[in-house]
Amino acid sequence: MIIIDGKKVAGELKQGIKAEVNERLSRGLKRPHLAAVLVGTDGGSETYVANKVRDCEEVGFQSTLIRLDEKAGEKELLGVVRSLNQDVSVDGFIVQLPLPAQIREQIILEAIDPDKDVDGFHPVNIGKMTLGLPSFLPATPAGIIRLLEYYKIETSGKHCIVIGRSNIVGTPLSILLSRKANPGNSTVTLCHSYTRNLGDLTKQADIIITALGRPGFLTGSMVKEGAVVIDVGTTRVPSETSKSGFKLTGDVKFEEVAPKCSFISPVPGGVGPMTRLGLLLNTLKAADNKMG
Amino acid sequence: MIIIDGKKVAGELKQGIKAEVNERLSRGLKRPHLAAVLVGTDGGSETYVANKVRDCEEVGFQSTLIRLDEKAGEKELLGVVRSLNQDVSVDGFIVQLPLPAQIREQIILEAIDPDKDVDGFHPVNIGKMTLGLPSFLPATPAGIIRLLEYYKIETSGKHCIVIGRSNIVGTPLSILLSRKANPGNSTVTLCHSYTRNLGDLTKQADIIITALGRPGFLTGSMVKEGAVVIDVGTTRVPSETSKSGFKLTGDVKFEEVAPKCSFISPVPGGVGPMTRLGLLLNTLKAADNKMG
Repeated sequence: MIIIDGKKVAGELKQGIKAEVNERLSRGLKRPHLAAVLVGTDGGSETYVANKVRDCEEVGFQSTLIRLDEKAGEKELLGVVRSLNQDVSVDGFIVQLPLPAQIREQIILEAIDPDKDVDGFHPVNIGKMTLGLPSFLPATPAGIIRLLEYYKIETSGKHCIVIGRSNIVGTPLSILLSRKANPGNSTVTLCHSYTRNLGDLTKQADIIITALGRPGFLTGSMVKEGAVVIDVGTTRVPSETSKSGFKLTGDVKFEEVAPKCSFISPVPGGVGPMTRLGLLLNTLKAADNKMG
Repeated sequence: MIIIDGKKVAGELKQGIKAEVNERLSRGLKRPHLAAVLVGTDGGSETYVANKVRDCEEVGFQSTLIRLDEKAGEKELLGVVRSLNQDVSVDGFIVQLPLPAQIREQIILEAIDPDKDVDGFHPVNIGKMTLGLPSFLPATPAGIIRLLEYYKIETSGKHCIVIGRSNIVGTPLSILLSRKANPGNSTVTLCHSYTRNLGDLTKQADIIITALGRPGFLTGSMVKEGAVVIDVGTTRVPSETSKSGFKLTGDVKFEEVAPKCSFISPVPGGVGPMTRLGLLLNTLKAADNKMG
């Protein structure tokens, strides 16, 4: 049984991005430039954006953080989005979600120039992904694909169960894994809250990917010997042993499931570190696209 | 066992569209207007477009057929697409596929204004469908959804196997059926040429949808008692009893499979007639959208 080390893989891939940035600079090209828009001062969002900015520094990207007041209106945010669309110095940008209630998320996401949409949430990018065309991929599915690739986990012809049909993880992942590509070519079953007899399905699966946010959901008896298990769940549960007072917990009963697996990704340290990488890879791609 | 009568359903829905057109006219609104662009004189395409024009007449739509020479270049066709995008008298339009080799299909499809893309092939529409947002749906999946609806076939919580992952049938259908909607909320397994042990999967399925184009592929032993089988395959096979010298054949060994089914759609007369309806429904929707 191999425990997938997302931190190690993300670290190595970051080194690769850094090398590519240096190579670009040596050719006289500018640093890739990511902008992030943060509306309000939500604690979680502050942390996420700060991490993204730090990631950029680490790999040598330029980054810009644009802050709007939590009372900012849709019109004001749309103005910022439009000016970033037009700013040729910015390769890609994100608007940190969630947004305050007075702003309609979908209106904002669709206003972003698809060629700068490094979160990969614009319908054009989701549509191109679905059609198998080049596009920016959403970060978490892209990170999982990279992990499968890194560990040379065969997906072709395998039966893969994806649990959870969210627009940012389960649904795009099910599409990516069933595409004619490598990794890909899996027979994918997308499961969700309406699925019956889930355990009968997971027991048949070569690869199980859980993205539910329900700690301990996937138990040992639901998994066949030799399966690959990727845990995307991240739930904060109270913890007395942790300084912060909580710990991140996945969907998988690790101690039961792990012994049966050929590969398993833990929480924390599995998919999580790869998710932040997706944004860097998309930004690099955005910078490359502009050259073409 | 109930044999799904696509011709009857399409006929009834057409009557509904006709009534809606008359109601629009009585409110002083104009007729919905569909334009079709045909490049060259391919026999199949000529027939398809002629049928679409006839459908329009039947329900009271205005229709315009624009013909380009088979040697027309990409630039010429793009010019036509742009002028149709701008023509306020046109609610929706299609460019009949396939296109001659000198024209890149994807360039043309992406040039169509998504709000007039009544074939539902533009990445924006595919992306919105994937995200569960309102969009124009591709004709064949939309037709199948309407059939399930008409016959009140429960999809929620059912295990549905879709065989074939094409961009115009299998992939969008798998997405539609797993969405949080009604029909929808199915547990969907998308199967394709890399799928192993397909018979083991189909035997578990409550609903099987085949879109392969391989006559006789789905046999009786692959189907459980009480299953719903929807046959999207349409292959021309030589026939001595038919005037045309061929007959349309589905993917299903009908005489073996039908006795086991609760519902089955035959070929011809099942999904086929519903596919042409999709275009009419999308055109009506395009006309409605413009009013909003």
